Amino acid sequence: MSRKTTLDLVNECDNFPYRYDDPEAYDGVRSGYFSFMLAGCNATLGYMKADIAQKMPLTDDWKLNEDTKTLLFQPRNANTLEDRNAVLAEYLQEVRKKQVFKVLSGWRNELYPIYGPNRELVLSMERSASALFGIVTYGVHMTAYVETNEGMKLWTPRRAETKQTYPGMMDNTVAGGLATGEEPFGCLIRECEEEASLPEHIAQQAKACGMLTYFHVRDARAGGETGLCQPECQYIYDLKLPADVIPQPGDDEAVDFRLLSVGEVREALAAGKFKPNCALLLVEFFVRHGLLTPEDELDYIQIVSRLHRKLEFPTR
Amino acid sequence: MSRKTTLDLVNECDNFPYRYDDPEAYDGVRSGYFSFMLAGCNATLGYMKADIAQKMPLTDDWKLNEDTKTLLFQPRNANTLEDRNAVLAEYLQEVRKKQVFKVLSGWRNELYPIYGPNRELVLSMERSASALFGIVTYGVHMTAYVETNEGMKLWTPRRAETKQTYPGMMDNTVAGGLATGEEPFGCLIRECEEEASLPEHIAQQAKACGMLTYFHVRDARAGGETGLCQPECQYIYDLKLPADVIPQPGDDEAVDFRLLSVGEVREALAAGKFKPNCALLLVEFFVRHGLLTPEDELDYIQIVSRLHRKLEFPTR
Repeated sequence: MSRKTTLDLVNECDNFPYRYDDPEAYDGVRSGYFSFMLAGCNATLGYMKADIAQKMPLTDDWKLNEDTKTLLFQPRNANTLEDRNAVLAEYLQEVRKKQVFKVLSGWRNELYPIYGPNRELVLSMERSASALFGIVTYGVHMTAYVETNEGMKLWTPRRAETKQTYPGMMDNTVAGGLATGEEPFGCLIRECEEEASLPEHIAQQAKACGMLTYFHVRDARAGGETGLCQPECQYIYDLKLPADVIPQPGDDEAVDFRLLSVGEVREALAAGKFKPNCALLLVEFFVRHGLLTPEDELDYIQIVSRLHRKLEFPTR
Repeated sequence: MSRKTTLDLVNECDNFPYRYDDPEAYDGVRSGYFSFMLAGCNATLGYMKADIAQKMPLTDDWKLNEDTKTLLFQPRNANTLEDRNAVLAEYLQEVRKKQVFKVLSGWRNELYPIYGPNRELVLSMERSASALFGIVTYGVHMTAYVETNEGMKLWTPRRAETKQTYPGMMDNTVAGGLATGEEPFGCLIRECEEEASLPEHIAQQAKACGMLTYFHVRDARAGGETGLCQPECQYIYDLKLPADVIPQPGDDEAVDFRLLSVGEVREALAAGKFKPNCALLLVEFFVRHGLLTPEDELDYIQIVSRLHRKLEFPTR
């Protein structure tokens, strides 16, 4: 198996093209996607694969325009956010029952927020449907580390083989999606307890360190349809742990946690063992902690800017 | 005087429009600039204000195309990098003598590198001319800080009133431009000694923490012509200092260094006292050290991505 460079890891996760790099190539890829829009909201909220948009079983609440390549959600008699959410929820349940899309079989019963151009919440959508519509999703990712006599070590879980997405791959210490109404730090505290059995008084010491933003297009490892757009914003946290605090699986997400040296993490990254967006978080961690320097890495400038992509959709 | 928000500080430094945000507005601004190109190099190397390109006293080594809005540098009988550099250097000296452009009166006798699409060095240009051609420039910026009983404090210099650019404004502890052939860490060590009298064994402890990239359009505070493009890549370093190491002005760059609390730095930022790109470095420092969190700042996502702009030119 060929070893992955750091730029390979970035290219694998932030894999929707940039218009600046090559307008023609960008337009070629972009033309394979429809714009998901909401009536009354002047912005494209996500990119939908053309065949997904065309396979959506439409009702009067939807309008597909093949000329403008737009799928418009225009819920009738829905004047409030709650009304719109209710129409969408009922609709997606119907689509799920018809078994049109594989990803909906991983129904989560969790609502993800969608924001308009003025950062206002305009809609909430069942989590498993988010990639069908290509909307921006939000999450928290935390690296717990220990300063040892042998240098820094990172707490690294392996995902359960039973996970719908990226089974068996290596992950960040704690990570989770931000549901409608959740704040990042509150979400992190909850996930620390659920995923790693870290009690609140310890999780509270986690430090906000920035954002990871990228535009991912899903491949087979994500499960379900491929080619779905997944633009994501991940709030980044670091947690320095004393040697005697050992994360333990608290739910069925992780099978175990191992304390790996920076060298071991690098090896696993190069071998492609990490879930793609978790690899990116580790690259950011290495950059921020001076473990990957401009002198080490020829592609430093490109890598750092691509860890912080400015998305072409409204965000939170 | 109105107080500046963090987003105001970002908008002031990263002030060339983004095409994604508003293609028409972008195209409107972009149409006021010519593309600076080099024969044999298939990339736009910088954006030149139209009136600057039109005022360039051209020789046979240059070709201005009003239709494609391109200024092409095509040095005759220059087959090597050294030849091209020599033709450019001689030409810019002539332009300087003719006193066509104000910025060339600040001649630095320092060469800045220009890179092509494959990261190869294609040309070197006198520093004071770089903004005329709108090329990407590179530098290092370092924040020296002290952990005190009253919390973190930052060593903050004030620029001399005699500086050509941004006289009297507040600055980062150490900052400097990367000349052709320099490596970031080597440049930092040199600047630590020159600007802040920090000896090499202390400067060596500085830690690489990432990159700041933005696309600045100059205003009157920069001195000389306004509206010039200045896309920049700044290598970021942190240096944690013990309480007894006191930076001292080593050249004529700074008048003094003051040890300011985070609150005092915030106040000075809000009052617009910092040089624009130094303000951005401090915003990045606050984000990275958890001093500015997603819960504090509604514009967190936009701010973090704009601190790491993917430039529309080839870079190092």
